[in-house]
Amino acid sequence: MISILILGTGNLGKHLFDVFMVQNGVEIIQVYGRSKNAFSYFNPTNTTSDLVNIKEADIYIVAISDDAISEVSKFLVAKKGLIVHTSGSIPMNILPNKHRRGVFYPLQTFTVNRKVNFKEIPICIEAENKADYELLNELGSTISDKVIQLDSDQRKALHLAAVFANNFTNHMYHIAQEICVQNDAPFELLLPLINETANKIQDLSPFVAQTGPARRNDKGTLEKQLAQLKNKKHRKIYSLLSKSIQKTYGKKL
Amino acid sequence: MISILILGTGNLGKHLFDVFMVQNGVEIIQVYGRSKNAFSYFNPTNTTSDLVNIKEADIYIVAISDDAISEVSKFLVAKKGLIVHTSGSIPMNILPNKHRRGVFYPLQTFTVNRKVNFKEIPICIEAENKADYELLNELGSTISDKVIQLDSDQRKALHLAAVFANNFTNHMYHIAQEICVQNDAPFELLLPLINETANKIQDLSPFVAQTGPARRNDKGTLEKQLAQLKNKKHRKIYSLLSKSIQKTYGKKL
Repeated sequence: MISILILGTGNLGKHLFDVFMVQNGVEIIQVYGRSKNAFSYFNPTNTTSDLVNIKEADIYIVAISDDAISEVSKFLVAKKGLIVHTSGSIPMNILPNKHRRGVFYPLQTFTVNRKVNFKEIPICIEAENKADYELLNELGSTISDKVIQLDSDQRKALHLAAVFANNFTNHMYHIAQEICVQNDAPFELLLPLINETANKIQDLSPFVAQTGPARRNDKGTLEKQLAQLKNKKHRKIYSLLSKSIQKTYGKKL
Repeated sequence: MISILILGTGNLGKHLFDVFMVQNGVEIIQVYGRSKNAFSYFNPTNTTSDLVNIKEADIYIVAISDDAISEVSKFLVAKKGLIVHTSGSIPMNILPNKHRRGVFYPLQTFTVNRKVNFKEIPICIEAENKADYELLNELGSTISDKVIQLDSDQRKALHLAAVFANNFTNHMYHIAQEICVQNDAPFELLLPLINETANKIQDLSPFVAQTGPARRNDKGTLEKQLAQLKNKKHRKIYSLLSKSIQKTYGKKL
């Protein structure tokens, strides 16, 4: 049985709480939150808003905003347990080196009130010694089929890649919706296409899956579509991304 | 029973053939292709590469490249059947006005050797009179649960929106992969995130679903990530899309 203590009552803290609560091999000792507002969510688990009252546990999971990790972890220096943060972009060594320290980074976008299937979520772990790797691997394996060792640089790169794959992709969806709204066309008709675009690269590389006028270097269509866009911001993005696609295939094909 | 004739032996022609072949209410009279190379695919249906030999049918589905639609359709002027093209960006009236003419546009990305579920694919139809609308609706309904009337302007807008939702989104996946490769991080770890990003907006609007440093206007992280990108093209795209997200929320929130 691994005892854990979750620090953070935000989105990720809640998702981790929900999934660990139902694992036989894991006991959640306590949940720490800066404010008591969210505490009812964690009933009947013990909660505290005072870092001085933090209990003993095998693993402390610091699931708070990047800026606050360093400060909060200072309150845990007297603890014997392993302290991990959950951030993609922050190196492990932001945690005080007096600690046994590590990282437990679930690579997924978490939304309030939206269940995710943890079994499929890669858990990227990092630690300073073999025993702690094994402990994190054991903890991760209770909830996910994909526990992976990554160092801080790899994790940081993956986190940046995720900005393109998630944040920017979602912005593309948003612009598609703006174009639809401006032209009285129903955006929801694009949803099956959006799903298939994501599904396709589960089997094909994005390089092979690319289609469209820029991929074909179809200059006539590119010009026509650019002229069709009413919004200056959309035109700029259309232009830059089309050029980037043309360049990608101009070079390699 | 609706009799159809498919003109075009490319990707879409094959997908339409496959799905109509198994519908009770539809008979495929013939398949026309410019070259005979692909004809074995359509066995035992009659095939021809000579436009003069085109048979009679209720509906002629012109599934060829945009540039060739006008020319090929001229060979059909003597036919009594309804002639439709399958293009998102081309107006209906590119077809000769001597015809009964229309559009039958399946809004999806089609890949060779990759099955799609037609039931979920929106079929956007256009025609010049009620009887032809009904005929296209009947044909579309044999394969899809979503047959929608759209005029040429709406269809053109939707097709342009699809460039963002599909082509540009796939390019974001490609850049994510480039970043992973450059940093020795495994791209496949992003696949569950990519799926969830697409799934999320089946319920939430992309405007609400947006996350990330640009959405939070977190200038510190934006600067750090920009500096982290080694590729000039990636930096340009990161910069423009982050600004576009900041502007989107700066204005509306």
